[in-house]
Amino acid sequence: MNKPLDPALQAGNHKPLAGYQARHFLWEVKDGVGTITLNRPERKNPLTFDSYAELRDLFHNLKWATDVKTVVVTGAGGNFCSGGDVHEIIGPLIDLKAPELLMFTRMTGELVKMMRVCPQPIIAAIDGVCAGAGAIIAMSSDMRLGTARSKTAFLFNRVGLAGCDMGACAMLPRIIGQGRASELLYTGRSLGGEEGERWGFFNRLSEPEALLADAHKLAADLTAGPSFANGITKTMLHQEWAMTIEQAIEAEAQAQAICMLTEDYGRAYHAFVAKQKPVFQGN
Amino acid sequence: MNKPLDPALQAGNHKPLAGYQARHFLWEVKDGVGTITLNRPERKNPLTFDSYAELRDLFHNLKWATDVKTVVVTGAGGNFCSGGDVHEIIGPLIDLKAPELLMFTRMTGELVKMMRVCPQPIIAAIDGVCAGAGAIIAMSSDMRLGTARSKTAFLFNRVGLAGCDMGACAMLPRIIGQGRASELLYTGRSLGGEEGERWGFFNRLSEPEALLADAHKLAADLTAGPSFANGITKTMLHQEWAMTIEQAIEAEAQAQAICMLTEDYGRAYHAFVAKQKPVFQGN
Amino acid sequence: MNKPLDPALQAGNHKPLAGYQARHFLWEVKDGVGTITLNRPERKNPLTFDSYAELRDLFHNLKWATDVKTVVVTGAGGNFCSGGDVHEIIGPLIDLKAPELLMFTRMTGELVKMMRVCPQPIIAAIDGVCAGAGAIIAMSSDMRLGTARSKTAFLFNRVGLAGCDMGACAMLPRIIGQGRASELLYTGRSLGGEEGERWGFFNRLSEPEALLADAHKLAADLTAGPSFANGITKTMLHQEWAMTIEQAIEAEAQAQAICMLTEDYGRAYHAFVAKQKPVFQGN
Repeated sequence: MNKPLDPALQAGNHKPLAGYQARHFLWEVKDGVGTITLNRPERKNPLTFDSYAELRDLFHNLKWATDVKTVVVTGAGGNFCSGGDVHEIIGPLIDLKAPELLMFTRMTGELVKMMRVCPQPIIAAIDGVCAGAGAIIAMSSDMRLGTARSKTAFLFNRVGLAGCDMGACAMLPRIIGQGRASELLYTGRSLGGEEGERWGFFNRLSEPEALLADAHKLAADLTAGPSFANGITKTMLHQEWAMTIEQAIEAEAQAQAICMLTEDYGRAYHAFVAKQKPVFQGN
Repeated sequence: MNKPLDPALQAGNHKPLAGYQARHFLWEVKDGVGTITLNRPERKNPLTFDSYAELRDLFHNLKWATDVKTVVVTGAGGNFCSGGDVHEIIGPLIDLKAPELLMFTRMTGELVKMMRVCPQPIIAAIDGVCAGAGAIIAMSSDMRLGTARSKTAFLFNRVGLAGCDMGACAMLPRIIGQGRASELLYTGRSLGGEEGERWGFFNRLSEPEALLADAHKLAADLTAGPSFANGITKTMLHQEWAMTIEQAIEAEAQAQAICMLTEDYGRAYHAFVAKQKPVFQGN
Repeated sequence: MNKPLDPALQAGNHKPLAGYQARHFLWEVKDGVGTITLNRPERKNPLTFDSYAELRDLFHNLKWATDVKTVVVTGAGGNFCSGGDVHEIIGPLIDLKAPELLMFTRMTGELVKMMRVCPQPIIAAIDGVCAGAGAIIAMSSDMRLGTARSKTAFLFNRVGLAGCDMGACAMLPRIIGQGRASELLYTGRSLGGEEGERWGFFNRLSEPEALLADAHKLAADLTAGPSFANGITKTMLHQEWAMTIEQAIEAEAQAQAICMLTEDYGRAYHAFVAKQKPVFQGN
């Protein structure tokens, strides 16, 4: 029904990631769902300079990866992520000077920006340890499934740093409230699974053995939905962060008008009239 | 005690709505409380182009309706509102072009703006189905009373659209938190009554048969309060949405100084000294 | 290891408050924790023009008080604070004119600004009555410990005023959510201890007899932490209030890079490698 896209526009905007061979974590694309698995289970999946940079680049490239509709982030071996590796990140940083340190903090911050800017909703599946930069990756995801035994710690102040890491002082208060976020950032204490669900950090808890399947089920549901519109939802959640209500309403009027021009909108209507379930195609 | 208001200023700012005859819903004013009842119970009270426009205009006119101090919004027949009518809104929109669609999304957004800008606190009394634009009207109210059986669904993505409808990506996260709002907007799933109360979407739950009376009781309490000052509270909740803390504090210093000049403030003090209950007059 | 600080810079920035003799409340500094005790227990610790001004000045001076790392605010005799004294504040305000009223509301607002701008995390220990300006002081603290019997009321509308007092319409919604904050500000009703913990207003509840000790324990933990970095956490929670996510991430990249240059960061790393507990020094 659509005219074929101009080849140059097509080439500039459709860069599939299904075949991407990740070097510093596992990456798999199946039925439109891309799964990142942090995979150094013997160390509880810490990050290194290399894995930070590769994650940043992968999320950057997801902007043009039309074969990936939803992303799941998880960790191997019963833990999510133990944060920046003590020996491969924390130690080396001690010897750096200000401009180099800023280079590092900007790189890590860029990972969060890319997670917020890519159109795919991101689901974090969190079991066990979720600490430091791991907690930031969880926070920067759109939704979080946890387990009762998960332990999420924004432990920056435990290593002599401030809680303001990669956007935490802006984002965490909007997820769990200013007072609770302040406590976690000032004390670095662990947030348990039940408490995290009660506070709205976790959308829900799964049994550890069902966690990844639950995350994939949610991802499959989103992927079967109107994925173009879902990407617009994500864009607007991001854009409206610091707008006035009036600005947000005008921005949404424009964004939703675009969605009303998609065929997915027509598909939903025609399916409803025919008493069928709509089959969305993301356009 | 006050000098009479200049007649022109009076005429330009006091336009009572007690006698207003609504065409597309029920409207009643009693003891300073205006009640909107969406009233197509056989279809669970959907909205149409006409009812959208009339609601927008009514909330616009409430700005000058000094006979209405508080507004209650509810639905007839055990449901709140099923959202935009499938046949009278969703279908026709399929055939519109971009400028016309923007005309529609701006009209619906304007309803929310008018709800936030009128000085009257708005209480939504929500039983049964509360979906799509109905969920938006609930969200845009100042307070929400629900029932255990109420089902609130921001179901835009179910009809192929984005969750960014009428300010939802800005407002819903501030009510229930960013993670929970993201889930509701990405999945379109129903929020139950108990869950909604736990999340802060509902201020409290009522028994279905007591819901409207409870809403009117709360409205009567507010109406008996310092209604001018309540209107300033509402204005400032709106104004400070995207201000810095310093800006908000200066804005409140000015706004509260105005309220300290009202006679209601003196009435409260004198009643306290006389060990009586103050009788506020809204000036 | 550091060069001694230039004497002029030292003199301009290190003004200890341990010996400060407060006139309108109790002030004590012990082991780096400063404790303010509102102390007119026979009246449930109301504020006066004098105590407002002295609190504002104390929090202002805390900016340069390097001997105080954390602040605890509490009330004597089983209550936190009953707000502005009816006879010493509310009565006199009735007779003031607009510029003088603004002078008052700006003074009270300045107290909140100073609480948010000083680098020390503030812990409010709240038992019994916590009303009006008392509720604002609680709200403006970084963390709140309550008791089951505490009663927190933003009761401004009960005295004929608006809920927009000292930043409440901006700050309270970010702590407990927009809907719940609206209810408290429109109705002036009391928030109980259990409810307040459930809503995230209180970080946790203590037994009344253990409350102050619990607050001092938390304060001691923070004081033993990297206090320079904690001050940066506080600064950034404040600075990022109305930033976009991108702005916040860049701001945090810069702020955290500064913290990575502190010796506390190195101390944490070396302690970790030596399997010891780090001893932070706040530099």
